[in-house]
Amino acid sequence: MTVAVPDNRLEADYLIETRYPLEQAAEAMAGEQSSGTFVAVPCETPELKARAAARVERIEVLGEAEAPSLPGAGTPRAGAASRPIRARVTLSWPLANIGPSLPNLLAMVAGNLFELKQFSGLRIEDMRLPPAFADAYPGPRFGVDGTRRLAGVERRPLIGTIVKPSVGLTAEDTADLVHTLAEAGIDFIKDDELQSDGPSCPFEDRARAVMRVINDHADRTGRKVMFAFNLTGDLDQMRRRHDLVRDLGGTCVMTSLNSVGLVGMIEFCRHSELPIHAHRNGWGALTRHPLLGWSYVAWQKPWRIAGVDHMHVNGIRNKFCEPDDSVIASARACLTPIWPDRPCIVMPVFSSGQSAGQAPDTFEALGTGDLIFAAGGGVMAHPDGPAAGVASLREAWEAAMAGRTLAEYATTHPALARALEAYSG
Amino acid sequence: MTVAVPDNRLEADYLIETRYPLEQAAEAMAGEQSSGTFVAVPCETPELKARAAARVERIEVLGEAEAPSLPGAGTPRAGAASRPIRARVTLSWPLANIGPSLPNLLAMVAGNLFELKQFSGLRIEDMRLPPAFADAYPGPRFGVDGTRRLAGVERRPLIGTIVKPSVGLTAEDTADLVHTLAEAGIDFIKDDELQSDGPSCPFEDRARAVMRVINDHADRTGRKVMFAFNLTGDLDQMRRRHDLVRDLGGTCVMTSLNSVGLVGMIEFCRHSELPIHAHRNGWGALTRHPLLGWSYVAWQKPWRIAGVDHMHVNGIRNKFCEPDDSVIASARACLTPIWPDRPCIVMPVFSSGQSAGQAPDTFEALGTGDLIFAAGGGVMAHPDGPAAGVASLREAWEAAMAGRTLAEYATTHPALARALEAYSG
Repeated sequence: MTVAVPDNRLEADYLIETRYPLEQAAEAMAGEQSSGTFVAVPCETPELKARAAARVERIEVLGEAEAPSLPGAGTPRAGAASRPIRARVTLSWPLANIGPSLPNLLAMVAGNLFELKQFSGLRIEDMRLPPAFADAYPGPRFGVDGTRRLAGVERRPLIGTIVKPSVGLTAEDTADLVHTLAEAGIDFIKDDELQSDGPSCPFEDRARAVMRVINDHADRTGRKVMFAFNLTGDLDQMRRRHDLVRDLGGTCVMTSLNSVGLVGMIEFCRHSELPIHAHRNGWGALTRHPLLGWSYVAWQKPWRIAGVDHMHVNGIRNKFCEPDDSVIASARACLTPIWPDRPCIVMPVFSSGQSAGQAPDTFEALGTGDLIFAAGGGVMAHPDGPAAGVASLREAWEAAMAGRTLAEYATTHPALARALEAYSG
Repeated sequence: MTVAVPDNRLEADYLIETRYPLEQAAEAMAGEQSSGTFVAVPCETPELKARAAARVERIEVLGEAEAPSLPGAGTPRAGAASRPIRARVTLSWPLANIGPSLPNLLAMVAGNLFELKQFSGLRIEDMRLPPAFADAYPGPRFGVDGTRRLAGVERRPLIGTIVKPSVGLTAEDTADLVHTLAEAGIDFIKDDELQSDGPSCPFEDRARAVMRVINDHADRTGRKVMFAFNLTGDLDQMRRRHDLVRDLGGTCVMTSLNSVGLVGMIEFCRHSELPIHAHRNGWGALTRHPLLGWSYVAWQKPWRIAGVDHMHVNGIRNKFCEPDDSVIASARACLTPIWPDRPCIVMPVFSSGQSAGQAPDTFEALGTGDLIFAAGGGVMAHPDGPAAGVASLREAWEAAMAGRTLAEYATTHPALARALEAYSG
């Protein structure tokens, strides 16, 4: 959702659950996250409040909960045992409280809120930032167009896969697998997030071995497979590894966002000359409970403004516990402009249990092929081999984007037909 | 808990809840976070597994849950509606999978686990790391002894407070308040985490104005108040602000850990020449649900190894929703060595609704005064003024550490007596 906010204020939307009167609970949020505190202090003058206090902009009642969703919440008075109320609350702050600083934004919109006694549920659903943030940070340097240019793929999704086993392959084992996948016609390959720079597969050895295969293949075919090397590590390590990949002719690097954190990512994005593939592992801790933490719609914004280019969104009918509507909301968020003149669009990355079958629903929900569609078993375990696996995914997307059913398209496309049989379970 | 692990392996303990057979569920965790994946892949040979697979070390059944704690979990077969089982599970990994890298450690022990369909609850309770990590990172440069030396406080806790209102004061307003607090005999003052570098209170102006007051006071009295300047921001900003504070004669800086993230903190810790006061705002999202996310005991370790010196732990009978036993477990964790010869001890910071009354229970639970005891209202709202507020907190800790009751000690200490009346509610 792109809603205009004044240039000098920020807004955040919350889902809350409380037994306190709603206005009182919302005012407690606004107070805690701006000039207020638990006790009145003499310096909080009307002038100071006018300058610095957060405002409650909107409260929308959603209904009653049967019981408190999270433990530890209080009641307005002893013995008050009414059912908690759920509501949407929007707060706003003066930009002048923090200036256009992404790390301080997190302290302001989240901060201590999750621990406030008034709430048995509190989740950040969205936030809207003034364009001063766009001037303070680089944003995605490649995004959809830059990624397509480097990968040599137009209109349709990039068909991708993940090096498996996740960890344990040597550098040469990895390069052998990349050879197989390049021959199979893959567009995109990523390291698993568990593979970084351990002594049994050092980053430098892996980068050299893999890029030798990819460069050879590009010399022969004119197509350079995009490989996202996981360079997650300390900042100097990440910069050195990036420079190595760039110098070897590589076209993508990967980081684990929650392992690196926001300030490390900001610094790395400023350094990077390659598309940054952002893995969200660890994200479940922030979102798995529906009344706690962050929605993806809110959480993805700072990373995009900082400058990542691809963001993981899970996939339809995935192997994890996220429902499809949540996956689609995440992908739509990645494709929705943050500001009209600085959209910061990133490519959503679909993965986890993906095969040909999910292409039509994914396309129908998004209306675009501006995404990376990554399949592990969907490529490697195709009964006719990886080349048929890649072909089946391309064919599924051709069908989906042409408005034809998979069943019909499969009658003239045997790789797709075999995939639909093999992955029907 | 300090349990020896082999030098070449890492261990992590989890609280889990599942409807799957426990061994199968634990093996799914180990597989997902090492060489396994949802489908068998041909390269996962016995040799590779021996080299890279995580091991299930222990499973301890805790009992049945009435219903799944988190939504989205599956069942081993359709219609299986048995009650979920809770258990403690310990996994171990070869250090060689990642090497001694803190960011990659997070991807390995947490990663996708929170999203696995097998679990209706999954929480990291502790982890044990081989000493290679101590060689790779600086650890706290000041800790307890260095902080005491700079603050000029021996044996007893540092008595501290927070600048309030949280945000909205100008630099000169802040300096005026610091003057009052220094005259009152305070040991330690911190910025609120919402105060950083907004245009209405620029960091540089605040640092200069506050240090002028603190240096004047030190010249007159010989005691330099420790002020934790919140320099949370992008990396270059943090380094510049640190250098300014150091050059002005300041003795402490503060960061919001969850806003900065691990790689930014590692880089900043390598740069810093001052004690680093680590604020945990945002932490609630990772811990508020008892069957999801992180326990503080596990979560605090990477920050200590990275090199922070003080860590917030909330306080007994606090204004938030955390129970006292959790607060005490957190503080004990901060004071427990990570390795015998590289303990990485940090000072726990008690705050939120603290006044004289909590000193005895806090001391009894910890058996030490190696902590920062920060009170807002407990200092500023003392009926006889801030000097009496500070005196009451010192007297409460004198009594506690001498094994005397507050009531008895108050008979000869009027500031304490007035505090016990005023904050009895």
